[in-house]
Amino acid sequence: MAKAILFDAYGTLLDVHSVAALAESFAPGRGAALSQAWRSKQLEYTWLRTLSDRYADFWQVTGDALDWALEALGLSIEPAARQSLLDAYLDLAPFPENVAVLESLRGAGHVLGTLSNGTPQMLEAGLKSAGLRHLLTHVISIDAVRRFKTDPAAYRLGTEVVGAAAADIVFVSSNCWDAIGATWHGYRTFWVNRNNAPLERLGATPHGVGRTLADLRAFVG
Amino acid sequence: MAKAILFDAYGTLLDVHSVAALAESFAPGRGAALSQAWRSKQLEYTWLRTLSDRYADFWQVTGDALDWALEALGLSIEPAARQSLLDAYLDLAPFPENVAVLESLRGAGHVLGTLSNGTPQMLEAGLKSAGLRHLLTHVISIDAVRRFKTDPAAYRLGTEVVGAAAADIVFVSSNCWDAIGATWHGYRTFWVNRNNAPLERLGATPHGVGRTLADLRAFVG
Repeated sequence: MAKAILFDAYGTLLDVHSVAALAESFAPGRGAALSQAWRSKQLEYTWLRTLSDRYADFWQVTGDALDWALEALGLSIEPAARQSLLDAYLDLAPFPENVAVLESLRGAGHVLGTLSNGTPQMLEAGLKSAGLRHLLTHVISIDAVRRFKTDPAAYRLGTEVVGAAAADIVFVSSNCWDAIGATWHGYRTFWVNRNNAPLERLGATPHGVGRTLADLRAFVG
Repeated sequence: MAKAILFDAYGTLLDVHSVAALAESFAPGRGAALSQAWRSKQLEYTWLRTLSDRYADFWQVTGDALDWALEALGLSIEPAARQSLLDAYLDLAPFPENVAVLESLRGAGHVLGTLSNGTPQMLEAGLKSAGLRHLLTHVISIDAVRRFKTDPAAYRLGTEVVGAAAADIVFVSSNCWDAIGATWHGYRTFWVNRNNAPLERLGATPHGVGRTLADLRAFVG
């Protein structure tokens, strides 16, 4: 049995696109497009800031990306609406199967945790709101090292907090690039490919792939 | 007068979306979408590989991104068509005003160069094909340091090759994130915002902005 199973939070435990319905209420017909542009830009900013050693935390980056996405789509919304969209990041829905899968894994004796780009405050609020916090032994934020994934310093936190080698830890992400980043770092990795996305062409592959988090159970045995 | 003016190549001197017409011939109705997905993924791979210190050169990354984009759009094309799309990266069109602007700047005594993610081979072929090569004193590829922009090692190459401080060099890019990366590094920067894109929210701004490369002339004086 692995020493721990570490999950990515945003996109894996928490559905970042659960904000689309709220976005739709402010921008009829554009909610999904706003959610997609927001998310893509958020990731881009984490990579660029880490490459250039210009860290700003995930709350700041998430707000910055929202502002860019609103302007890119030509959407002008009230400051209160902008704030409610950002605050929705503290209250994202879990994917439907997640609570049951985490309960099952924990019941089987697995040590669970998250290794996330989110700030500690975002993670505590979001995981509690989603009904997942009590199932996780470790809540690990890259804010401690001020470098976002896929920087090695971010993945190294997981091994340090768990106190085990990467090869003895399972890392789970719905973001293929994140699963591959963790593979590069030495973790045993599982990609939850919810949307039947193509494998990222980065010269490495996750060790396991499933369609929902429920498929993880067979992978960890 | 600046010690040199360094231009980004792909997207700034060379129009990466000039492949869209060829793409359209292989995938009717999807050429522009393929070109956009290809380009976005190409940049994403440069950032992820640099973050994780897993360099592959820009030719490899460009092919990898093309394969991802084809699968993401559900397009199945012949290997020969795939190769001709990739080879089109060696024969990209310059933006319409570029030859005249570079001739004018060079005529005024400016030292010109490119600082690019492209491999030396890609740059020599592409710049020659576009009629720009003879106007550039420096053709600088980040392949020498195996780290893509916005990594500081990439921008440092420009100062080393020119033999001047970043503050004495003008760096020009149509990619806002690239202009900001260079701003962070200390260059005097100019963003050619061809598509009226929103300013990237990264906590810094290019020193100058224009709509075409012709606007650079007023900036450099």
